[in-house]
Amino acid sequence: MAMSSKALVLFSGGQDSVTCLAQALTDFPGAVETVAFDYGQRHFIELDQARKVAALAGVPFRVIDLTFISQLSQNALTDSSIKIETKEGELPSTFVPGRNLFFISVGAVIAQQKNIKVVYTGVCQTDFSGYPDCRDNFIKSCEQTVNLAMDTALEIRTPLMWLTKAQTVTKMEALGHLDWYQESHTCYEGHRPACGVCPACILRLKGFAEAGVSDPLAYQVV
Amino acid sequence: MAMSSKALVLFSGGQDSVTCLAQALTDFPGAVETVAFDYGQRHFIELDQARKVAALAGVPFRVIDLTFISQLSQNALTDSSIKIETKEGELPSTFVPGRNLFFISVGAVIAQQKNIKVVYTGVCQTDFSGYPDCRDNFIKSCEQTVNLAMDTALEIRTPLMWLTKAQTVTKMEALGHLDWYQESHTCYEGHRPACGVCPACILRLKGFAEAGVSDPLAYQVV
Repeated sequence: MAMSSKALVLFSGGQDSVTCLAQALTDFPGAVETVAFDYGQRHFIELDQARKVAALAGVPFRVIDLTFISQLSQNALTDSSIKIETKEGELPSTFVPGRNLFFISVGAVIAQQKNIKVVYTGVCQTDFSGYPDCRDNFIKSCEQTVNLAMDTALEIRTPLMWLTKAQTVTKMEALGHLDWYQESHTCYEGHRPACGVCPACILRLKGFAEAGVSDPLAYQVV
Repeated sequence: MAMSSKALVLFSGGQDSVTCLAQALTDFPGAVETVAFDYGQRHFIELDQARKVAALAGVPFRVIDLTFISQLSQNALTDSSIKIETKEGELPSTFVPGRNLFFISVGAVIAQQKNIKVVYTGVCQTDFSGYPDCRDNFIKSCEQTVNLAMDTALEIRTPLMWLTKAQTVTKMEALGHLDWYQESHTCYEGHRPACGVCPACILRLKGFAEAGVSDPLAYQVV
């Protein structure tokens, strides 16, 4: 049997997953699909932007309805009545329990169905913001679990795991697709132009500054 | 902080999960909740029967909509155009890829939200019917993965893992709740009275015969 030469990118339309898409297309030219998730996030704009980036890259784009996730727990990303904040010693209020577990599991099932052997995700331990499901030990364990669940040998590839935001920007520059960032979405407030002052915007802008690269995204405040 | 003394049972209304419920109520008297899943299974009767058994046992019952699962893959349990069959060397046509992975993950998130420390599931390696996600090594890996995903210390308890169907029946007799089996659902054809001739009914009847116990469930053919 010939080796499969297709890859699936778990795609949020954020800066990290857009960078992953560029990496995947370099590794698997013309053989990349994307999947995004509607998990009841506050800002549907994320999915709109994901669709735009996929169109720019010329790759298939599909949205899976995982809105059940927003019914399982209370958090600031799916409930606009909860304030976005981080308290010392607690999980951030933006933590959606199980989110990456569900995303990777769904990606793995889609990959199994399509005989895709590599799934990319943009999770990153370096800037993990207190989310346990962005750490490398979680990803390794999850890879083993999905393979045991289905008798498969999928690889979960995380090209950004050990990069700083600045290094991610530098990687994207090297991959030649910095322009895709203008449609990527980061702002927790859901604004376009981006607010520039929420924790997510601040982290993003810091990365560009450190990389010495200008962010092609439009901001209200810079 | 006081130890939590609550348990959650992943509940399908099948014979195994009904036995698990009896075990959980013995281990955690008066402190058990159940959760069932609508994953687009052919027979909604399963959820009706699960609700009836939960009522008999006097425990809270909740259904989570996971119908996205039926959109991810093609299998005989969620698509009535696919024949129920098993071919040598292949996964059974009734295998729903990722099913137990999703069930356990959702149960883990609910448990995390409610400070429940033990989740019961009736998976069983002895009669695993070729489903990789019923094996002990999958459960152990999944337990580790959900805990890494959320920084928790949940226990996934599988009291039936190494039992034969006959031993499960004997266990239920010892737990004193054989009568609950009359509302439990097993038949792949979705019949009540049960068809008695599908692979699931045959496996169930064999277990009762070996245990020397009469199945309180009504059958069309015995």
